[in-house]
Amino acid sequence: MQSPDLNMFFSPTGVAVIGASRVSGKLGNDVIVNLLDNGYEGPIYPVNPSAGEILGLPCYASIDAIPDPVDLAIIVLPAPYVLRALEDCGKRRIRGVTIISGGFREVGTEGIGLEEELKRIAAEYDIAVLGPNCIGTIDTHQSFNSTFVTGIPLPGEIALVSQSGALAAAIINWAQRAGIGLSRLVSSGNQAVISESDMIRATAEDEYTKVISLYIEGVEDGQAFIDAASETSQKLPVIGLKVGRGEGGAKAVASHTGALAGADIAYDAAMRRAGVLRADNLEQMLDWARALATQPLPKGNRVAVVTNAGGLGVIAVDALEAAGMRLAPLTEETRSHLRSRVFPAASVKNPVDILAGSGPASYTLCVDAVLADETVDAVVVAIAPQRWFDPLSLAEIIAELGSSFLSRKKPLLAVMMGLTPGDPSSETLQAHGIPNYPFPARVGSTLGAMWQRRQWLDQCEALTAAVELDDLDTDTAAAAVQAGLEVTREQMESADADSALWMPVNQVESLMQSYGISVPASGLAPDVDQALLLAETIGYPLVLKLEAAGLSHKTDVGGVRLGIESPDDLRIAFTEMVDQFHEKMPHTSIDGVRLQPMVDGMTELIVGMVRDPQFGPLIMVGAGGTQVELQKDVAFDLAPINHYQAEALIDQTSAGQLLAGFRGGDPADRDAVVDVVVRLSQLALDWPQIAEVEINPLIVRRVGEGASAVDARLRLDPDAG
Amino acid sequence: MQSPDLNMFFSPTGVAVIGASRVSGKLGNDVIVNLLDNGYEGPIYPVNPSAGEILGLPCYASIDAIPDPVDLAIIVLPAPYVLRALEDCGKRRIRGVTIISGGFREVGTEGIGLEEELKRIAAEYDIAVLGPNCIGTIDTHQSFNSTFVTGIPLPGEIALVSQSGALAAAIINWAQRAGIGLSRLVSSGNQAVISESDMIRATAEDEYTKVISLYIEGVEDGQAFIDAASETSQKLPVIGLKVGRGEGGAKAVASHTGALAGADIAYDAAMRRAGVLRADNLEQMLDWARALATQPLPKGNRVAVVTNAGGLGVIAVDALEAAGMRLAPLTEETRSHLRSRVFPAASVKNPVDILAGSGPASYTLCVDAVLADETVDAVVVAIAPQRWFDPLSLAEIIAELGSSFLSRKKPLLAVMMGLTPGDPSSETLQAHGIPNYPFPARVGSTLGAMWQRRQWLDQCEALTAAVELDDLDTDTAAAAVQAGLEVTREQMESADADSALWMPVNQVESLMQSYGISVPASGLAPDVDQALLLAETIGYPLVLKLEAAGLSHKTDVGGVRLGIESPDDLRIAFTEMVDQFHEKMPHTSIDGVRLQPMVDGMTELIVGMVRDPQFGPLIMVGAGGTQVELQKDVAFDLAPINHYQAEALIDQTSAGQLLAGFRGGDPADRDAVVDVVVRLSQLALDWPQIAEVEINPLIVRRVGEGASAVDARLRLDPDAG
Repeated sequence: MQSPDLNMFFSPTGVAVIGASRVSGKLGNDVIVNLLDNGYEGPIYPVNPSAGEILGLPCYASIDAIPDPVDLAIIVLPAPYVLRALEDCGKRRIRGVTIISGGFREVGTEGIGLEEELKRIAAEYDIAVLGPNCIGTIDTHQSFNSTFVTGIPLPGEIALVSQSGALAAAIINWAQRAGIGLSRLVSSGNQAVISESDMIRATAEDEYTKVISLYIEGVEDGQAFIDAASETSQKLPVIGLKVGRGEGGAKAVASHTGALAGADIAYDAAMRRAGVLRADNLEQMLDWARALATQPLPKGNRVAVVTNAGGLGVIAVDALEAAGMRLAPLTEETRSHLRSRVFPAASVKNPVDILAGSGPASYTLCVDAVLADETVDAVVVAIAPQRWFDPLSLAEIIAELGSSFLSRKKPLLAVMMGLTPGDPSSETLQAHGIPNYPFPARVGSTLGAMWQRRQWLDQCEALTAAVELDDLDTDTAAAAVQAGLEVTREQMESADADSALWMPVNQVESLMQSYGISVPASGLAPDVDQALLLAETIGYPLVLKLEAAGLSHKTDVGGVRLGIESPDDLRIAFTEMVDQFHEKMPHTSIDGVRLQPMVDGMTELIVGMVRDPQFGPLIMVGAGGTQVELQKDVAFDLAPINHYQAEALIDQTSAGQLLAGFRGGDPADRDAVVDVVVRLSQLALDWPQIAEVEINPLIVRRVGEGASAVDARLRLDPDAG
Repeated sequence: MQSPDLNMFFSPTGVAVIGASRVSGKLGNDVIVNLLDNGYEGPIYPVNPSAGEILGLPCYASIDAIPDPVDLAIIVLPAPYVLRALEDCGKRRIRGVTIISGGFREVGTEGIGLEEELKRIAAEYDIAVLGPNCIGTIDTHQSFNSTFVTGIPLPGEIALVSQSGALAAAIINWAQRAGIGLSRLVSSGNQAVISESDMIRATAEDEYTKVISLYIEGVEDGQAFIDAASETSQKLPVIGLKVGRGEGGAKAVASHTGALAGADIAYDAAMRRAGVLRADNLEQMLDWARALATQPLPKGNRVAVVTNAGGLGVIAVDALEAAGMRLAPLTEETRSHLRSRVFPAASVKNPVDILAGSGPASYTLCVDAVLADETVDAVVVAIAPQRWFDPLSLAEIIAELGSSFLSRKKPLLAVMMGLTPGDPSSETLQAHGIPNYPFPARVGSTLGAMWQRRQWLDQCEALTAAVELDDLDTDTAAAAVQAGLEVTREQMESADADSALWMPVNQVESLMQSYGISVPASGLAPDVDQALLLAETIGYPLVLKLEAAGLSHKTDVGGVRLGIESPDDLRIAFTEMVDQFHEKMPHTSIDGVRLQPMVDGMTELIVGMVRDPQFGPLIMVGAGGTQVELQKDVAFDLAPINHYQAEALIDQTSAGQLLAGFRGGDPADRDAVVDVVVRLSQLALDWPQIAEVEINPLIVRRVGEGASAVDARLRLDPDAG
């Protein structure tokens, strides 16, 4: 979809306020107050049939009476009057409308109807509608504030796109008190027409915006979000705060994969994919935004910490290490340079502790020395206040050292404890773009996020390389899916619908093989005699797997036997399995016992897929086995997954170490695992009818010998695709 | 050890300042300025041979010239003059001395000698010495401040015991600016004489102190710390910030247990044992301290959140859930009560979102309703600022609702965003003991810590119950340890010392059995013929384990064979194992092959012990197997471990779920595992020569059938004990 031109929301040629009021404290008055107080220079047209003048501005009785120029209307009427006003805006050819009024989708059935009608009108007249149920937009550099929120934000470099109006209001207030500037601010409300994705793009176009922060409660079009966010992330940092971590998605609980996945995991994968830095909470988002807006990215993860209090240094180091950073070793040259400039009891080993008696000159020498050190990628200066120097002196030297010339384009973050916003030291740091944190732990996650962005930018090309698979047998796959769907539909109509949705094993084998995933050929024997015959074809040693309707975790009921070496073994095992099953589940009938060749390998993994309602196929890789749900040693990524991404996915869990040959073992065929992951991702993308796949175990052999999906299960959804 | 009376450090009858100076900005002047400015009412005696008067106080030429009353001296002389002054204090019978001067242990060899001499003098004259290298003590309620740090802290209820003087100074500064009061503050410096444990006790005796916060860099006497902290925790909350998480302890890396343990794990276990709430960073410590000082503990973990901004509510909920709290369900009665008092579009489901248009009256009604709800254990009020009410009105209603009558003794925490310290709203909340947090996520860990304390207090009796084992065969144990030590000493003298410290299997079996830990009887066969003979005694099926000097992870070299069913099997397996080993490790000689009966069970765990240099035996339990180091699904606790603690330890990992019968399996003998853990803990306590134990696997059978330590290894340290 072509993004609409949304410039009128930030720099309109003229603004109509529909529902303008003379009464102070009413929204229709507050909006005009803000437009005036923030210094908007274009014409403001209050619309109110019964007022002559509002706040000194002449009032218009109706929308069609508004003169040019006007390209934005702000509607603050009660919900029932909004649709009519919107239609009038359409007729007057106003291209952008912000609907502040609530009373739509968020209030239930009645509101949903109103909102549908609103969308229809917007489409008919081609109006870009922001909201309803939002607080509107701000562009500080255009002196434009169309919200009703108290406070005039300072111009700055941080943009905010928020699905919550109240949260946006809180941030305006916080930023103003903390002396932090904002560039653009959007509250997207119910997103009936304009989505957060549209606004991410619109915000990224602003020349003053250096970092975008997103507050997300839920995304409707996952792919549109990923597209808008990845495109934007390549230009400037995007930070996402997605709340509701505990919420489960629509879960398919029949497989390990389904039990381990969840809506939050999909959001996590989507943000990672799009290069969005995911913050845990609001404080962290703002901590990161301040640094990303003004400081260069580190080229590596080695940090030097300079402090006058050992304790502050150690706290900073703990937080840095927790965030994936490490202490820069410092060269011998730097250490000896420092040694001759600090107290004898000071530590010139990183973290550099110059002791409580040191002042601005010592700081200057030491910070400069570590900035110049080639083993240092970023510097943190942590300062406990002391009686013998004015904090302003320190703020000034840090500000000066942070200039691009002296800092060698390395990030420099300050922890000057005990400053209050608005004091001269805070203002000095702020003016020079040095973010200051009141507690040392907060530099940890901040530098971690900066380093994460650096890595994402470096890998961006590899991450976006297309998947090319030219050996897929799509005809066979189509036939298998078709046959599977027929069986599934039949099963759904039968009584035992709930438990019967797994695709028959024959078709799973055929489908997997058509996509180049190796599955050992097997056969189903209804009785011992046929099993013995079949065994001659397949060859010993064998694996036996009991098949019964709805039986998914076979090992739990003794339904798997390994290492069947001979016809005698087979006869005994077959009978025992069936008897044992009948005893445990007397009311379930058995389809037979499946015979599979015994596959040996170096290690066993699990590979699976579930479909997330917002973001589509979610691929899982991890250490396999029946305990996978306990260990939770698995990782997820969204399809499509290319070879590079598959490698990264494998290394997120201990699967990477297992494949490398854990504790002296030989390495296993990692390339084969990468191949299975890439192929499974393609399979899921090509066939939306596949709801869920689980390969457990995937047995991986020696390097060059491949991997086998010895137990693969697949569930189809006849209503999808 | 009897704790010394340390009252003179907080409320001295008279104070001598040795090294007093007339020069402003010198420490010897700053200390006197602080004593005067903070309003100390007792006599102050500056000691300086060359000054007549300092800051209006008559000066004394020498220590012996000081008149009574005097029970505290503060020494601010350069290090070389300190010892002489200390001796003079002893002669003058001054019982307490704070040594602010640095230049001792912290500067290396020379300083260590000075500090040893300092300790000797302190012991000779029975002086309680604080420091050296510290900033001294403060007691705000006694108007006593013996530090040289800028700022007069407000009287309050939070005490701080800090091993870092600079950090203490930073906290004084922060607290003053944030308007937060302190009770006592101690910087313990090098702790040559008075330790942090002494000061924890001394601080707990203060009637004004309601919570103690500790900043710890390292503890020297682990047991003394645990004793002082547990005793104190039973009276009032203790919060510990232990920095240096990344630091490894002295590691024994021969076992999984050793590889997984570390100094930080021992500190974690020690604090948990002592009921100390461990904070991650300074900000968190202060967040918790403010709530614990004034708010009651929650009786359960069910929280109600009332907000005017959905987003703030969701952020708070995410943080609460991450900290082990959950949302209170709210009764139907509460919901319908709320329903008739809020906007139609508001949510009366927890988190209760009363929408942006609600003001102080709505807040009052809703917060009161959730406080009165029986399903609610704690309440969070999260407020985004709005134009239509003054924040002070809200602060006042929250303060009033927080009174013990209206709050029903449930904790009430506020998140009023955008307040600055010192504004009337902040001051109102502060005066009524309602902690306010500027960001909603911070209530999560805070309530989590309060709930953790509530649980610890409830479990305290069970946690401290003594272990009683009356069936130990200590004579046999002594003999086994003795024999083991002899072998170990011989091995240490031999060339291959490094790899030869494991105790011979015979003695391990004998030692384990003497402590009631079941080990299957085994035998070592040097060749195939003897193996065949031995097998007749033990009985098939068998397990074979290769034994060679220094071979600890047998499976890595194919040194374990399971399920040997017959003499033929035995003959083949024996030969293969030995050949394979010779091929892989041609330079290592084989002692033989150990034959063990094959033990079947429901599940396999790992149980181990390593000795931490500070805290003694650290017991580990987890899911067993060769991948234990990858999965890290293990937990540690300090000995002694009683049955109650062993249960808790088991439930910290998936071992608990495995024993309960994971995914439909039958439950295993959990009691037997508890018993092994308790007995291993006792063994480690009784025999300090045992450096390390690892049982992997511990095979656990059905309920009532016990558990077997089928592979137990034990390392002795001849120099210990």
